[in-house]
Amino acid sequence: MTIYNAPTKDTQFILHELLNITESDIPGYDELEADFTGAILEEAGKINTEVLHPLNAVGDREGCRLENGVVYTPTGFKEAFNQVREGGWTGLAGDPEYGGQGMPYIMGTAVNEIFGAANQAFAMYQGLTMGAYASIHAHGTDAQKAKYLPKMSTCEWTGTMNLTEPHCGTDLGLMRTKAAPQDDGSYKITGQKIFISAGDHDMSDNVIHLVLAKINGGPEGIKGVSLFIVPKFMVNEDGSVGARNGVSVGSIEEKMGIHGNSTCVMNYDEATGYLLGEEHKGMRAMFTMMNHARLGVGLQGLSQAEVAYQNAVEYAKDRLQGRAVTGAQNPDGPADPLIVHPDIRRALMDQKSFVEGARAYLLWSSTLLDAADRNNDEAAHGLLSLMTPVIKGFLTDQGYDMTVQAQQVYGGHGYIEEQGMSQFTRDARIAMIYEGANGVQALDLVGRKLAQDGGKHVMAFFALVKDFIKENEGDEALKADFLDPLKSASKDLQAAAMYFMQEGMKNPNAALSGSTDFLHLFGHVSLGLMWARMAKVASTALANGATDTEFYETKLATGRYYMARRLPATKMHLARIETGADTVMALAADSF
Amino acid sequence: MTIYNAPTKDTQFILHELLNITESDIPGYDELEADFTGAILEEAGKINTEVLHPLNAVGDREGCRLENGVVYTPTGFKEAFNQVREGGWTGLAGDPEYGGQGMPYIMGTAVNEIFGAANQAFAMYQGLTMGAYASIHAHGTDAQKAKYLPKMSTCEWTGTMNLTEPHCGTDLGLMRTKAAPQDDGSYKITGQKIFISAGDHDMSDNVIHLVLAKINGGPEGIKGVSLFIVPKFMVNEDGSVGARNGVSVGSIEEKMGIHGNSTCVMNYDEATGYLLGEEHKGMRAMFTMMNHARLGVGLQGLSQAEVAYQNAVEYAKDRLQGRAVTGAQNPDGPADPLIVHPDIRRALMDQKSFVEGARAYLLWSSTLLDAADRNNDEAAHGLLSLMTPVIKGFLTDQGYDMTVQAQQVYGGHGYIEEQGMSQFTRDARIAMIYEGANGVQALDLVGRKLAQDGGKHVMAFFALVKDFIKENEGDEALKADFLDPLKSASKDLQAAAMYFMQEGMKNPNAALSGSTDFLHLFGHVSLGLMWARMAKVASTALANGATDTEFYETKLATGRYYMARRLPATKMHLARIETGADTVMALAADSF
Repeated sequence: MTIYNAPTKDTQFILHELLNITESDIPGYDELEADFTGAILEEAGKINTEVLHPLNAVGDREGCRLENGVVYTPTGFKEAFNQVREGGWTGLAGDPEYGGQGMPYIMGTAVNEIFGAANQAFAMYQGLTMGAYASIHAHGTDAQKAKYLPKMSTCEWTGTMNLTEPHCGTDLGLMRTKAAPQDDGSYKITGQKIFISAGDHDMSDNVIHLVLAKINGGPEGIKGVSLFIVPKFMVNEDGSVGARNGVSVGSIEEKMGIHGNSTCVMNYDEATGYLLGEEHKGMRAMFTMMNHARLGVGLQGLSQAEVAYQNAVEYAKDRLQGRAVTGAQNPDGPADPLIVHPDIRRALMDQKSFVEGARAYLLWSSTLLDAADRNNDEAAHGLLSLMTPVIKGFLTDQGYDMTVQAQQVYGGHGYIEEQGMSQFTRDARIAMIYEGANGVQALDLVGRKLAQDGGKHVMAFFALVKDFIKENEGDEALKADFLDPLKSASKDLQAAAMYFMQEGMKNPNAALSGSTDFLHLFGHVSLGLMWARMAKVASTALANGATDTEFYETKLATGRYYMARRLPATKMHLARIETGADTVMALAADSF
Repeated sequence: MTIYNAPTKDTQFILHELLNITESDIPGYDELEADFTGAILEEAGKINTEVLHPLNAVGDREGCRLENGVVYTPTGFKEAFNQVREGGWTGLAGDPEYGGQGMPYIMGTAVNEIFGAANQAFAMYQGLTMGAYASIHAHGTDAQKAKYLPKMSTCEWTGTMNLTEPHCGTDLGLMRTKAAPQDDGSYKITGQKIFISAGDHDMSDNVIHLVLAKINGGPEGIKGVSLFIVPKFMVNEDGSVGARNGVSVGSIEEKMGIHGNSTCVMNYDEATGYLLGEEHKGMRAMFTMMNHARLGVGLQGLSQAEVAYQNAVEYAKDRLQGRAVTGAQNPDGPADPLIVHPDIRRALMDQKSFVEGARAYLLWSSTLLDAADRNNDEAAHGLLSLMTPVIKGFLTDQGYDMTVQAQQVYGGHGYIEEQGMSQFTRDARIAMIYEGANGVQALDLVGRKLAQDGGKHVMAFFALVKDFIKENEGDEALKADFLDPLKSASKDLQAAAMYFMQEGMKNPNAALSGSTDFLHLFGHVSLGLMWARMAKVASTALANGATDTEFYETKLATGRYYMARRLPATKMHLARIETGADTVMALAADSF
């Protein structure tokens, strides 16, 4: 019942007019000409609209099932996965030395938005694989890379990440899974892992599990955690798949959403594992995967908001209900379409201004990652590191809210599973939780990232905002609608950071009590910056006589909405932050 | 897996210390002594904790099923419904002349919160019946009342309300269901209704449908709509159940939540119906039901937030993860409980300050309803009429957000159906939609209620706030923490109302673009007023040497949290409102 079309035009605008990627000095960007990126986006749109999106509801309805130790994916998933492989979509940003196409990360972001929007549960099978790929690529030996990466690049073998155990998720120091060293240098892994996305399934010849475990006799707590490669099937010397390893699926979890993805309880029973990276440095190796994954999860917030928005718009134009308060707009029909009503527009503008702002934010952030990876740009790396919890936490919180708003446009029909709007909400919900619940992101932001390297990354962010405002202060077209609100919001962010520095020294609870508010405050200023930049590009294009005036005028109008209606949230967040810890921490635990 | 306990102590505090109900001049209130209300709440808590809450997950898992035209409710529902009937819970606030116990509405509110929290889907079977009861009671002939009400009072017969059709929900003027007048004064009803909660089931001997339809030849649109009583089984002269009427269940909807309630497509095929109230005045008759129902739905927002909160607190105390930033608080354990972390506390305080404030707001509003019904108090009726959309819209929007926050406390475990937190979220979601989607509530508030009777009801609300502040201006214990924030928030509300009056005259879109923000602004000020009043009671009790200091100090601390952390939202809403319609209405429909 639902529709999805890739937002190619908007992505192209961001890549080529906002970010001017071909003019960047980042290696590989010069090849990303508009025709080329456009063709990729068109093709990605095609397979997603025609093949993967129609399977979204199927996956939700059927879910995965475990029979005699075998996990079966929903009808059509296996064939579709083959089509994705054949289309060469799996190794887009992978290393050419190991089967990848070597494209910059930014193209991965642009394409993954589309896959995540069309069918999140399906896209996760490749997404997890690419996370595991990145981890082996960064920390594996040459032999490990040669053995696993080419097959993972094509998703002939898929990957997983195994962190969580029944009694611990965030606090991995409590982990119980054990690794016993063997004479041949391998380990026997024993323990239980839960919530393992894409944990097992019938779509690939092998599953390469990355498993955190403690080597017997190692240090206590988090310092004794190591990372292991544990294949489902042992891999023979010639690269072929051999005997079954000691890993099995205990059960498939019944979840609120993403039913098409097999979230498994994985049991390791003296499974053979191979150390990835150094002994007891498992967290470091896992973080490579996790930082990529957090950006990817932030992207899911955008993706689900986008597909929900597209459907809400269609419904609002189609459904006839009531009359415009200013007079009938469809006088020959029995009623006007929903879209004439101001509160419906408010909801749609909330969504539209979020998704376009978030898209710009994610693609810009991707240039930072590419600059860090390909140019060893330390400043870019530091800024992205600071913003990673914002990208993950803000975009998934807001993305979820937007799916709820889109569902609301449907009224009662939004609550009926047949219409598909409930699925967007239920699927989007997980993104606020996995890869570190959003409260943990806020803690990471305020407790760690903000003061990192003497606070220079947040200073760099403030400088970006300040410089943009200064460069454009003479531009009357931008001043009142964009520059002034951005300046005001940015001041709120600076005041909050200052409050944390002063009060956090005396009482860390004072800073942490405002951590979620700070994350949202940071997110709003980030999107405000994106909108101000996009407005600059749009107004310049119009001044230069661009022919597609409707596109640029719509961009400006949407930006004005964000600045006028969304950005004022910064004042509320600052007011909350500045009340500190007193009211938050007042009660004894038993008084709740 | 989940728990639920009735919040008897808090309800008693509100009834007897905040509202002092036994001192009220509302007929019947003098009988509501603390011992009596306490006993009722205890008993309601017992059946809900022991019988109905354990069926909540069962209902969610099994749902209802339609076999050969018969609707089967989930395992255990039928037996539990008998227990509820036997306990005398169904006719609590009904008219003693027609089988009711004649208690004031406020006791219905206090008790229904408990039923709605323990098992929303189950409670709806009685809830809909009481709505239909109220409508027949207000508009029926003596014969109709005598025929239907006693059996509905005991829920031997249950009731439904049939408004929505596939192509119309909010805009009922588009309705197609027809009523053909018969020689005997009855009508033949033909048409299809959808989303009919408790539409049919196996727990009662008859179902009394209230159905909106258009009498052939009547006026066009909403002015031609009449309300009919359409029993599932014809009722014989002696009151016994006779032949099957021409009404059948087309299907049961698959929904996001409230699976335990049978949401039906109802087909009327020349079903015999009896006019309820006057010809073509169906909307008036239906509104009696709807206004009660809207208060009841607002109550569901509280109920789901309360049960979700109770579980989140338990989990936060129980789950060990990480260490307090200020030093280990459970040094002998492997980690500290979640509740030591500031961001977890923030989430719990958001929930706690919402549910206690909302409870006070609903019980206070119930005194207005009782004053209107039992004392013909026009001012009380007007104020409640103004606040009905706020109660429905604000409490369900916020209640939903609180269930999402409670779920978030569980991390990954919150996403797994086995834990039960997902159900609270999925069940709470419907309350934002049914009985008028919250956008429609906002439209009702700003477009109709605000200016009603020359705006005197909103002026009465402002006067309440002002008088409270004035009466207590010398109270230093309240000033900074309660009175000042309330004054500031109330000013924001007044400024918004003023903006609507000035700008709404020129352009109605300017007011309606801010309608949802205004609804939330109004809701926050209302809860702020409740918290200030509760703080007054608590600080007075402490000053007077009350022994239960922990209760009153917790009340004050929770109130301080609301005023400091939640109330600043009013500034954001006002800022949004004052940007008017320009950015909201800027785009052409095709530019979305």
